Amino acid sequence: MTDTAPELSIDLNADLGEGFGRWQLTDDEALLSVVTSANVACGFHGGDPSTMRRVCELAAVRGVVIGAQVSYRDLAGFGRRAMDVPPGELADEVAYQIGALEIFARAAGARVAYVKPHGALYNRCVHDETQAAAVIEGVRTAGNPGLPVLGLPGSQLHRAARAAGLPTVTEAFADRAYTAAGTLVPRTSPGALISDPEAVLRRSVAIARDATVTSIDGQPLAVRVRSLCVHGDTPGAAALARRIRAGLDGAGVRVAAFA
Amino acid sequence: MTDTAPELSIDLNADLGEGFGRWQLTDDEALLSVVTSANVACGFHGGDPSTMRRVCELAAVRGVVIGAQVSYRDLAGFGRRAMDVPPGELADEVAYQIGALEIFARAAGARVAYVKPHGALYNRCVHDETQAAAVIEGVRTAGNPGLPVLGLPGSQLHRAARAAGLPTVTEAFADRAYTAAGTLVPRTSPGALISDPEAVLRRSVAIARDATVTSIDGQPLAVRVRSLCVHGDTPGAAALARRIRAGLDGAGVRVAAFA
Amino acid sequence: MTDTAPELSIDLNADLGEGFGRWQLTDDEALLSVVTSANVACGFHGGDPSTMRRVCELAAVRGVVIGAQVSYRDLAGFGRRAMDVPPGELADEVAYQIGALEIFARAAGARVAYVKPHGALYNRCVHDETQAAAVIEGVRTAGNPGLPVLGLPGSQLHRAARAAGLPTVTEAFADRAYTAAGTLVPRTSPGALISDPEAVLRRSVAIARDATVTSIDGQPLAVRVRSLCVHGDTPGAAALARRIRAGLDGAGVRVAAFA
Amino acid sequence: MTDTAPELSIDLNADLGEGFGRWQLTDDEALLSVVTSANVACGFHGGDPSTMRRVCELAAVRGVVIGAQVSYRDLAGFGRRAMDVPPGELADEVAYQIGALEIFARAAGARVAYVKPHGALYNRCVHDETQAAAVIEGVRTAGNPGLPVLGLPGSQLHRAARAAGLPTVTEAFADRAYTAAGTLVPRTSPGALISDPEAVLRRSVAIARDATVTSIDGQPLAVRVRSLCVHGDTPGAAALARRIRAGLDGAGVRVAAFA
Repeated sequence: MTDTAPELSIDLNADLGEGFGRWQLTDDEALLSVVTSANVACGFHGGDPSTMRRVCELAAVRGVVIGAQVSYRDLAGFGRRAMDVPPGELADEVAYQIGALEIFARAAGARVAYVKPHGALYNRCVHDETQAAAVIEGVRTAGNPGLPVLGLPGSQLHRAARAAGLPTVTEAFADRAYTAAGTLVPRTSPGALISDPEAVLRRSVAIARDATVTSIDGQPLAVRVRSLCVHGDTPGAAALARRIRAGLDGAGVRVAAFA
Repeated sequence: MTDTAPELSIDLNADLGEGFGRWQLTDDEALLSVVTSANVACGFHGGDPSTMRRVCELAAVRGVVIGAQVSYRDLAGFGRRAMDVPPGELADEVAYQIGALEIFARAAGARVAYVKPHGALYNRCVHDETQAAAVIEGVRTAGNPGLPVLGLPGSQLHRAARAAGLPTVTEAFADRAYTAAGTLVPRTSPGALISDPEAVLRRSVAIARDATVTSIDGQPLAVRVRSLCVHGDTPGAAALARRIRAGLDGAGVRVAAFA
Repeated sequence: MTDTAPELSIDLNADLGEGFGRWQLTDDEALLSVVTSANVACGFHGGDPSTMRRVCELAAVRGVVIGAQVSYRDLAGFGRRAMDVPPGELADEVAYQIGALEIFARAAGARVAYVKPHGALYNRCVHDETQAAAVIEGVRTAGNPGLPVLGLPGSQLHRAARAAGLPTVTEAFADRAYTAAGTLVPRTSPGALISDPEAVLRRSVAIARDATVTSIDGQPLAVRVRSLCVHGDTPGAAALARRIRAGLDGAGVRVAAFA
Repeated sequence: MTDTAPELSIDLNADLGEGFGRWQLTDDEALLSVVTSANVACGFHGGDPSTMRRVCELAAVRGVVIGAQVSYRDLAGFGRRAMDVPPGELADEVAYQIGALEIFARAAGARVAYVKPHGALYNRCVHDETQAAAVIEGVRTAGNPGLPVLGLPGSQLHRAARAAGLPTVTEAFADRAYTAAGTLVPRTSPGALISDPEAVLRRSVAIARDATVTSIDGQPLAVRVRSLCVHGDTPGAAALARRIRAGLDGAGVRVAAFA
């Protein structure tokens, strides 16, 4: 009918497959029953080949979209230590990771459907034009001309993606504080992380349904995004993700992959 | 004409791209002007992403066929230390490496056209049924159902490949001694390595033209192979490879990729 | 008094500090309140430098003796994949690890008081004379002429240690099945692991007080050792270790470090 | 005689042992016959355990002083990519490396007599107060209260060392251009590297004998240092180092270790 409001819809993404060998981290199986997009670690900050294969298989079975979560080469620091990698090297390291994941995605009957940088590389690509361009160069080397790039609205990463003709998908974080300017409050600042599940739930619905979030100084802030990132590497992560999904359902927001 | 003898032809393969970061090893550029098949290191024993990209680009320009030289995960030991990797892990590690290389091959307008294990994995897969099957499982995970496997005639690797319906390509080593039984004399035994360039040259022609080589105890040995492996990681490797190629030309053997 | 029985005493050792960077594994703090000897991972299979420092500090405060748990260089496989490392390399890798740990032990006011191989290296050194000798060579390179080596009675490791004039300390596993010949039943065989806590407790007391354990075919077996290994990398490991310690106390066995 | 001028003397230091496994880089043997102080790689940017042992043995035989060349953990980037390592982690990584080298120095009858950061860590510690303090914290954890720190005059590294009560030793680079302010011209700027051997030779003598060097804009600049760094990782490095040493001898400057 012509007078129907447009359907409200949002994607839920989470970092998955971040164990390595003997070490477990993310509750992949539980999260894959909740999220619609899986940012799969590709071996540079976590994610051994067997974990990559298993996560891809499970994601394919559950209809969860597979994305390559590319990182600096830093197992010891879990990709959380910014590195001054020369652009050419960085581009090639990104392509390498996408290629490795692509094999397991295909073997599972799926494909790598988007790319999202991890940790320090994600943060660096918000502001660093050179590294953002290098990541995008790596995505282009990986060859799929229409591979979407998941990231922060207004980031250099998204600017570089658009300049290269790649689709961009915006995301928000319900458990991170925002400044009045719409940027994330740095993790090291007080109040940066929102640990109260009720608050995270409330903010999730506000972002998805109302395209708004309360900034750290109490002002309403417009946040129009296509995906919501839920964290996967903390105890209770899967349970909170499940509650968020139920909360979104209850608020009339359809949870669906963007891809 | 009907009375023409069938054309004699052999492939020349070499290990390439075995530097890592700051460290150089193989003279990739020189060797790519000689060989017809390049066994490109995929990052587990050597071969950083930028080297992989450059070697693939150069190989594509020169019409050299690209193969994935898969290895145990062992940078410190250059993949020369046999490892008891559980079969599932090994298969996934092999697939990971092929996938990573495939990205760079494709970006260069080519593709990974065959797989060859490196170093200790190569040696292990001559006799070890379980690891050979795991490598082949990894090749199959990598998804191209017709990906040929380069290896020793009679190896478990080739048996497993055939059992899985994969094409096999046999190779010989002109600078390695053979036992009367047709196996390679272990590197640690006296006389295992043939360092005299003239002898290597002579044996190359004998293998390619006459399908024969003299065993370590002086007997003629039938060696019917489609590829000849020349070494790339020693000083003078490219010069020797060039002489071998010229020698084969002079003996009426056409040097051409098997793939 | 002359007619007093000699005091019964046993050491309790556990593998500790086996996390790496973001990944946690062993409940170091809880275990350090139970065991008397800590086998501290040295970075080759687990154990980043900060974890090594923290475990050493805590061990020193609690009076727990610090040992170097040396491993193959294999983070991806957690040191559980046997490797054919040439003896010279292996010796140097062992010395490297001991040296790195020694710094943190000293900074904590303690020292590395013994060495114990980890995982696949431990198993290999039961039977492999060459690798056992290489490990001992590494211990000697590390310089302390009286550094004890913790291992299985009758192992090649202990033979090599004695040949080099190093003290040996024997250990038993209360949660592993023994063959009638007194060797460990391989992990892959049925019944190899004893998961019932009550059985583990019972066997611990039998080993420590009676120097005996029931073999997998039901026969009593003499097991005279100075240390008992409790596992640290499973959920509930610390709780079980605490019960074992209490059980030994109750049975009149004093728990005390061998060193 | 009382009217004799004080003896002129300078130390020659070079980066050594920077190969890794199969990969060679520095001509360790040749350089150890020229320099008086060896900055030995400790495994984080180069330098496998066996290379560390061999370099220490050779240095001890030749009377060359052994220093720990500590680096970011970055084999793929050869320690040339600056990393935002949290200070606690960085301190522990530095201590770990010193400890590992100390074992091999002692086994050779010597000891680690100084510390010098490598590559990007060296450059970062010129200006970055936090990382400089972390490196010094690591040196202190390594436990020798009087361990000298080799670095640039005026660097944050030296400030932190003095604040911690550690001795500092200054060095200059004869093959690097200096600004009028006395800082090194960044490698990426034109004219930063001086490749003409005659110029390097001339500057070496000027620095050692006259405590002066010509800045990039042609002005004389006072450079009073106790050590001169010669490069070891380029072809001809050993030959140039030998000429520099001969040139210093000829100019009446005694070449002797500072330690």
